[in-house]
Amino acid sequence: MINWKDDRNLTLLVDFYELTMANGYLKNGLGNKIAYFDMFFRNVPDGGGFSIIAGLEQLIDYLNNLKFTEEDIKFLESKKIFSMEFLDYLKNFKFECDVWAIPEGTPVFPNEPLIIVRGPIIQAQFIETMVLLTINHQSLIATKANRIVRAAQGRPVLEFGSRRAQGYDGAILGARAAYIGGCAATANTIAEKMFGIPAVGTMAHSWVQMFDNELEAFRAWARTYPDNCLLLVDTYNVLKSGIPNAIKVFKEELLPRGYRPKGIRIDSGDIKYLSEKARQMLDEAGFSDCKIIASNSLDEYIIRDVLAQGAKIDSFGVGERLITAKSEPVFGGVYKLVAVEENGRIIPKIKISENPEKITNPGFKQVYRLYDKNTNKAIADLITFANEEIDESKPLKIFDPIFTWKSKILENYTARKLLVKIFDKGKCIYKSPSVHEIRNYCLKEIETLWEEVLRFENPHKYYVDLSLKLWKTKQKLLRKYSY
Amino acid sequence: MINWKDDRNLTLLVDFYELTMANGYLKNGLGNKIAYFDMFFRNVPDGGGFSIIAGLEQLIDYLNNLKFTEEDIKFLESKKIFSMEFLDYLKNFKFECDVWAIPEGTPVFPNEPLIIVRGPIIQAQFIETMVLLTINHQSLIATKANRIVRAAQGRPVLEFGSRRAQGYDGAILGARAAYIGGCAATANTIAEKMFGIPAVGTMAHSWVQMFDNELEAFRAWARTYPDNCLLLVDTYNVLKSGIPNAIKVFKEELLPRGYRPKGIRIDSGDIKYLSEKARQMLDEAGFSDCKIIASNSLDEYIIRDVLAQGAKIDSFGVGERLITAKSEPVFGGVYKLVAVEENGRIIPKIKISENPEKITNPGFKQVYRLYDKNTNKAIADLITFANEEIDESKPLKIFDPIFTWKSKILENYTARKLLVKIFDKGKCIYKSPSVHEIRNYCLKEIETLWEEVLRFENPHKYYVDLSLKLWKTKQKLLRKYSY
Repeated sequence: MINWKDDRNLTLLVDFYELTMANGYLKNGLGNKIAYFDMFFRNVPDGGGFSIIAGLEQLIDYLNNLKFTEEDIKFLESKKIFSMEFLDYLKNFKFECDVWAIPEGTPVFPNEPLIIVRGPIIQAQFIETMVLLTINHQSLIATKANRIVRAAQGRPVLEFGSRRAQGYDGAILGARAAYIGGCAATANTIAEKMFGIPAVGTMAHSWVQMFDNELEAFRAWARTYPDNCLLLVDTYNVLKSGIPNAIKVFKEELLPRGYRPKGIRIDSGDIKYLSEKARQMLDEAGFSDCKIIASNSLDEYIIRDVLAQGAKIDSFGVGERLITAKSEPVFGGVYKLVAVEENGRIIPKIKISENPEKITNPGFKQVYRLYDKNTNKAIADLITFANEEIDESKPLKIFDPIFTWKSKILENYTARKLLVKIFDKGKCIYKSPSVHEIRNYCLKEIETLWEEVLRFENPHKYYVDLSLKLWKTKQKLLRKYSY
Repeated sequence: MINWKDDRNLTLLVDFYELTMANGYLKNGLGNKIAYFDMFFRNVPDGGGFSIIAGLEQLIDYLNNLKFTEEDIKFLESKKIFSMEFLDYLKNFKFECDVWAIPEGTPVFPNEPLIIVRGPIIQAQFIETMVLLTINHQSLIATKANRIVRAAQGRPVLEFGSRRAQGYDGAILGARAAYIGGCAATANTIAEKMFGIPAVGTMAHSWVQMFDNELEAFRAWARTYPDNCLLLVDTYNVLKSGIPNAIKVFKEELLPRGYRPKGIRIDSGDIKYLSEKARQMLDEAGFSDCKIIASNSLDEYIIRDVLAQGAKIDSFGVGERLITAKSEPVFGGVYKLVAVEENGRIIPKIKISENPEKITNPGFKQVYRLYDKNTNKAIADLITFANEEIDESKPLKIFDPIFTWKSKILENYTARKLLVKIFDKGKCIYKSPSVHEIRNYCLKEIETLWEEVLRFENPHKYYVDLSLKLWKTKQKLLRKYSY
């Protein structure tokens, strides 16, 4: 049965300063002050045009299970830095925050709040490490996987990276994120058991080596799996040995029993050249239905190039460069205080920085995605205060928050709120869709993006604007804190 | 209590083809044939001179707990591809392999077997995914961490990367590997609870933002932690606000109570310039004992450069570039069949490849590290068959396995076997040292390497030679399989 559940106690997977600060807030009488934090990112990895958010299901799981065991408390006590009052607070810890999130699989853009947490500062800041770790990791892999899937132009991409992942979750949750990003299957068996992601695989070189020769190894395989016969043809020599032996075995072992071959896999050498020759040999032998699968250090750039050169490849196995997002292995999400409440009023906060692009957007916010009613394409995202409503029946003026003279008046548009409430006062009120639903949703959402945004390099910069109200508040705060 | 234990059932964290092959071996009567697999890597990440092996404790834990639950069996049955005989075999699965390994923390080099597994092929091949995943991940991070630690030239390096790690294990076991590689501490609290790695941390920008102004925020902190007062000084402006406020608070809150400040942390801007100015201001105020800690996208190159320019930094917090090994996030370990047994005799096997550097070293082997008796420096590693002994009292001729005319006669040397037996017929006979012992061992072992091998770029290539017997066997097999 498919039932994601992580039974580990990860409560102390937290940067130690969250604990020293929590203890400090309590001691200074600030523990229950209501604070708002935004999780957002500043740059799309690999210079791409958009990212895909993923990991929400695991974040929910973590928040639902957040508690300090006696063992945790004893450990913290042993650090001799925390007050008894604080340790007591942890003993009786009950998660009380409100959380909003953009659903998994949504294309997202820099500076938009992906997750908003509202609650007592002592709690809202405590969960920083896990919010970031969870969403950063899976968003990184979903985003990378989608690039590779788009490069393959409809050919299935298989996630083969477990052995080179950065830890067990890197492999398991990486497979999940890769599937959300559009991969067709994974080699990681446990990912099927946990999430229902199809697990696939055939043989390694060691199978071929275990037999006296390649022909015998192929024969044994064909007899064992006649209805699912896919042969790895590069153990010795693809064109002189692998393909001829495969064809012989297809003819002698499969055809007489009424089976057709599933395919061959090439895992080394030049896959453009070898796939063309292999295709020709298979076609001439009457196996034009036999698929060719290529693997070996692939990524979106190599796939794009070999396909442009006419490689005859039907599907791609992609390993280390997907599961670690090798070309840019960090999704730089941050978690910043954006407001506090005082006597029930929301007071926006700003974080100044020497780097202008690191300045935060203050306040409790919502993100609207604006679609053209005629084309159903996304035109822009608009970040507003949470209580601003958009009246679709009226024209809407949007403007660039830096180059403010660049503006545009929208008519005939729809506005969709991206942020959905998932926790209400500590109680989860959201049910995660299945990974299949998330994957379908993701692929459909990407169809709403203009081709110009989808480019691998130098994509068009999608507009993420601020409402006039939000923009004015930000300017005021900037002036207040300027040095 | 420090007690590493992973209770998750990770048995099905396995590439699906290990299962289809296992089922195939059983069906073809080969299940119990004894096979030997080597885990080794081909290139040191970042073009470095050596790697550090890590992760053995977790691999042992996995192997000790390897079993298929009823749920696992039911799941596999639902795939409708495995024979009843195979599912029965899994139900009664008992790990029976012998395993040898190079201890954690040892500097290791390309093409050396780091792990050797001997056992029934059905089992020895099954564990491939987890052997690779476990050792690849932690070796990657230990190797990267050690580069960063060496760049810091004795200044403590703190591992701050949890929020950007690739998954929870990426953060937890990454912190473990970073400590083995020489980091002094981590921000990840659970890494202390699990392994005893010191967890450290002070405040985030949000602490400063939660108060009406920076001065008040610093004051509250100093009162809460007078004996451990380390202030983050870059929320608004390091030199105009952060340092002056810190000095004021040190003078007004700490000195009168008999405390000295611990330090300040700079997390943005130019850390070379800012640390010099900060040092000057602190010294002039009488706080020359106040440490300066820098963080913000650091790695070995930036640390080397700012120290060469005279930055006044006492310790470094290193995040995403360490915990993901950002500059090269993949440790390319592979797991290859190298021999089988037939009637009790070991038959070496070879894997040919179009790329000569991908050809494997056949047979059941041992790795000797040869030290100069006078300097105690490592001269070379020698890969031999497992049953070859080296008589240290006699001169030893070693030669380059490719450029065979390059040879050297060693005298006055010692030879140490690197591979240690850790499982005997499925039973663990090895006790993992603590992470502290591994870390100390690692730092000592690195002292046996010549400076030339330690260079970040273009290091001297450490010699890894083959015994004459092994070299001859390899040549014979190469001729046999040539196309």
